[in-house]
Amino acid sequence: MEHEYDLYYWPSIQGRGEFVRLILEDGGASYRDVARLPASQGGGVPALKRFLEGDGAGGLPFAPPFVKHGDRVIAQTANILQYLGPRLGLVPDDEGARVFAHQVQLTVMDFLTEIHDVHHPIAVSLYYEDQQPEARRRATHLLAERIPKYLRYFEKVLGADAATAGRTRFMLGSSFSYVDLSMFQVVAGLEYAFPKALVQIAPVFPGLVNLARRVSERPRLAAYLGSTRRIPFNQQGVFRHYPELDAVGAT
Amino acid sequence: MEHEYDLYYWPSIQGRGEFVRLILEDGGASYRDVARLPASQGGGVPALKRFLEGDGAGGLPFAPPFVKHGDRVIAQTANILQYLGPRLGLVPDDEGARVFAHQVQLTVMDFLTEIHDVHHPIAVSLYYEDQQPEARRRATHLLAERIPKYLRYFEKVLGADAATAGRTRFMLGSSFSYVDLSMFQVVAGLEYAFPKALVQIAPVFPGLVNLARRVSERPRLAAYLGSTRRIPFNQQGVFRHYPELDAVGAT
Repeated sequence: MEHEYDLYYWPSIQGRGEFVRLILEDGGASYRDVARLPASQGGGVPALKRFLEGDGAGGLPFAPPFVKHGDRVIAQTANILQYLGPRLGLVPDDEGARVFAHQVQLTVMDFLTEIHDVHHPIAVSLYYEDQQPEARRRATHLLAERIPKYLRYFEKVLGADAATAGRTRFMLGSSFSYVDLSMFQVVAGLEYAFPKALVQIAPVFPGLVNLARRVSERPRLAAYLGSTRRIPFNQQGVFRHYPELDAVGAT
Repeated sequence: MEHEYDLYYWPSIQGRGEFVRLILEDGGASYRDVARLPASQGGGVPALKRFLEGDGAGGLPFAPPFVKHGDRVIAQTANILQYLGPRLGLVPDDEGARVFAHQVQLTVMDFLTEIHDVHHPIAVSLYYEDQQPEARRRATHLLAERIPKYLRYFEKVLGADAATAGRTRFMLGSSFSYVDLSMFQVVAGLEYAFPKALVQIAPVFPGLVNLARRVSERPRLAAYLGSTRRIPFNQQGVFRHYPELDAVGAT
């Protein structure tokens, strides 16, 4: 095998897989994004589904993303980041910091689920259009209550001084980690999905906005974001821009 | 300090904290369930809220449950189990098995969120009664699609032979682990919340039902389940019994 890691994720969206792409890219990993390869190279969605049906090696995944590393198949986004972090030098080398990094990452995943469910409050098997009244109702609470609550928490973890005092503060303090990559993705996603509401929520998270900008300027990440490997945000992922849901404080 | 672990969780419900109580009890840990102690012993909900407001030591939790162990404060249910598993001898001693155990546990947590959200599809800040039409609609999909999908997956992890061939098979194969404790709790919770629907879904997960019974007969766990330390299921936790939501296949 020429590549150390094989990532399996839906080929046309950022979704949860993007958190894995970011750590692989920023960590300079040798990897393939398998489902984005042509079938002639063993790629495409069928290559991914083979694992979900239990025909692949390793620990049976419930859903993408999952990563194949040697004989291992590792699923669950936060679990993958926890696995890759030490191997790519993107988490500090002590148990306390790693446990806390994972704890914050799991809170990011909970936040993502709430953001996703705003356009699917009833069922993932239904189209957004078939649950739009419920989505509108949920969006009011998401924007007024949940997004500010989560962002206040992450801002508190980052430290209130992050926006002004120096440029070296990260989610784990002085050490850059995969949690910072995830915060970048969350800020970018929210800006895409809820541009109007974010203007009003902005005072809540100045440090995170500053952090997201610093992350985006890291050389490997900037190269990735400017490449075709970065799939643009669209209306099939976790973060979707429906103007009718972007209406906190609207009169 | 006389006890090695301090658990902080809402004192009147099983909720996500129950997964932590189960590993502490089955692992024979020396622990206190702090919020269930009287205020005169430093207990009660105020003791818990102090940490959420960032006044406690250790890694800032977003929400209960969290566990204090020495100077560390560890939050996020699956993260706590991952931390306690090796310390209480409730996960195998190799990285591959631990990564997979955590992966399955994270899938349990996703399942729990879907089960919780059936009675809160719009917002956690609203009463169930104020989102009942949406809850009914979501319940139809939860029972017909999501519960069978998750149970089929967990049954596949357990192995198709679990119900008939021998009594020694667990979620990680031959080794008992905290994932088995979690599966017990999931089966017990579903039986409480959806007794009618489960009769129809039962053919999907015979191995898990058998596993749950075997887990409940473990000496320490049986003692716990028969004690007042086990809070009964009720209408404030994750698993709630609303007859109007227990209606898969109803005509």
